Amino acid sequence: MRILVTGAAGFIGRALLHRLLIDMDGAEITALDLAEAPAGLSGARLSWIRGGLDDPAVLEQLGAAPFHLVFHLASIPGGRAEAAPALGRRVNLDASLDLFQLLAESRHRPRVVYASSIAVYGALAEARVSARTEARPAITYGAHKRMVEIALADHTRRGDLSGIALRLPGIVARPRPVSGFGSAFMSELLHALSAGESYVCPVSPGATAWWLSAKAAVDNLLLAGKLDVCGTLQLPALRLSIAEVVDGLAQLLGAERAARVTFDPDQGIEDVFGRYPELDATAELALGFAHDGSVAVMIANAVRAIA
Amino acid sequence: MRILVTGAAGFIGRALLHRLLIDMDGAEITALDLAEAPAGLSGARLSWIRGGLDDPAVLEQLGAAPFHLVFHLASIPGGRAEAAPALGRRVNLDASLDLFQLLAESRHRPRVVYASSIAVYGALAEARVSARTEARPAITYGAHKRMVEIALADHTRRGDLSGIALRLPGIVARPRPVSGFGSAFMSELLHALSAGESYVCPVSPGATAWWLSAKAAVDNLLLAGKLDVCGTLQLPALRLSIAEVVDGLAQLLGAERAARVTFDPDQGIEDVFGRYPELDATAELALGFAHDGSVAVMIANAVRAIA
Repeated sequence: MRILVTGAAGFIGRALLHRLLIDMDGAEITALDLAEAPAGLSGARLSWIRGGLDDPAVLEQLGAAPFHLVFHLASIPGGRAEAAPALGRRVNLDASLDLFQLLAESRHRPRVVYASSIAVYGALAEARVSARTEARPAITYGAHKRMVEIALADHTRRGDLSGIALRLPGIVARPRPVSGFGSAFMSELLHALSAGESYVCPVSPGATAWWLSAKAAVDNLLLAGKLDVCGTLQLPALRLSIAEVVDGLAQLLGAERAARVTFDPDQGIEDVFGRYPELDATAELALGFAHDGSVAVMIANAVRAIA
Repeated sequence: MRILVTGAAGFIGRALLHRLLIDMDGAEITALDLAEAPAGLSGARLSWIRGGLDDPAVLEQLGAAPFHLVFHLASIPGGRAEAAPALGRRVNLDASLDLFQLLAESRHRPRVVYASSIAVYGALAEARVSARTEARPAITYGAHKRMVEIALADHTRRGDLSGIALRLPGIVARPRPVSGFGSAFMSELLHALSAGESYVCPVSPGATAWWLSAKAAVDNLLLAGKLDVCGTLQLPALRLSIAEVVDGLAQLLGAERAARVTFDPDQGIEDVFGRYPELDATAELALGFAHDGSVAVMIANAVRAIA
């Protein structure tokens, strides 16, 4: 089995690669990223290509060997795409479509797992959000993610790809420095309290968000690679208030460390990233997709990855 | 005022150009099409560019002069895009996005009227369809139309375009030979009975579809150019059965001509193009968008254009 992972040096990419090298014994893995292979990621089964999907030479290289399973994670982050929409289009939209077209032309009907995002929803104004909620993206990154979902669904309908798009919530804990995301506070809170630092939280204790550890995200990506279900799915996540997460951190790290968080809410961040409604992932849970199960496990998974 | 019309030699394009040359006194009009200017379309105010938006030289030429109002009609038809999806992507998706990017970079925030399509809806399984109905395109052409709607909405949100996408229903009567559309019977019926020919209709008398004359389509496009409302809209249309249209033709042309239609329903065509549900364009009607008003007027408008 030949597997391709794009964005392989990223936060999710490297966690996925570690698991693929352990779980998928015998698989040959091609990893693609602008960055070089992180330390500790190597082996005879792993080929690392440095480059971008917007480089025709890279596409040609990928086209030479057909893949059976593809995890397409590479993207320009939301903040950067918003500031440079033409770059965002080239990488997040055009390069994704070029990759799909290349894979479709391989005539092997590969399984394609696409890392989409809750950014497709936009304002999250509904009382309850699910994969069926109307997508009204409010940033260019989210618009491109939605467009790629549609393109993948069309390839699947045509029968030349077996596509599944997973809408990822905020994944914790992104590595420091956590930048370019309005939701950075989710990861920053975990980093600061784990390190015994004080933290000024830019949202109120009652602010709600959707939480998923990188470990759980990788579990879900691996499951998506194995299922034969196609379509656009919302990954389950725990809907937690900051107060619940701080309580969880107090249980794990002690009340003293957890007490080092203070609150200075920024209304702009609170409005966009602190008012997440109920998440209905009933259909996805029935397929076996899962969140961390409890705030304690989510925090333990996230903090263990930091250590 | 400088106006751009893409797909200007097409069925809708040429009807729109005729009206623009009459109504928009003083406007300078640039018309773009792969084909040359149709006979009867000329004048000092009209510049005709032969070429495609997928040609960098054409884009460069368009970039030289900023436009205030753009009607983007150019596209590869649905049947052809389904058979050649890479071509469909290049023209219907990539070239549309390139045009939007060029217009956005002009810093003039032009008004952009985009001819989208009811093909974005897919199976039309809902009892009542409106612009808020979830788009689940079932052909590549519809997937690309939906993706372009999203891109236009994002440019509008960014503030670099003033975009409005109109979802056009089947427009009658498309010129003969009417090919490449499963809904060709709508135009063929009008052509055949107008010409005094017999016609074997591939759907039953009870088959329902959405009908709009080219004249009414152009009225709606012109209105969209003048309004400052942005977003994705469903054009109103008359929902009529074939029997109602044949009755209307009998009124206009006489019972003898109308009697020359016979029925040999094709289940495939009937299922996809003969089961159109109720169309809810309440919001669009309130803005002044309109269908032909009655079956008699719709037929008269369509048949007058044939003559």
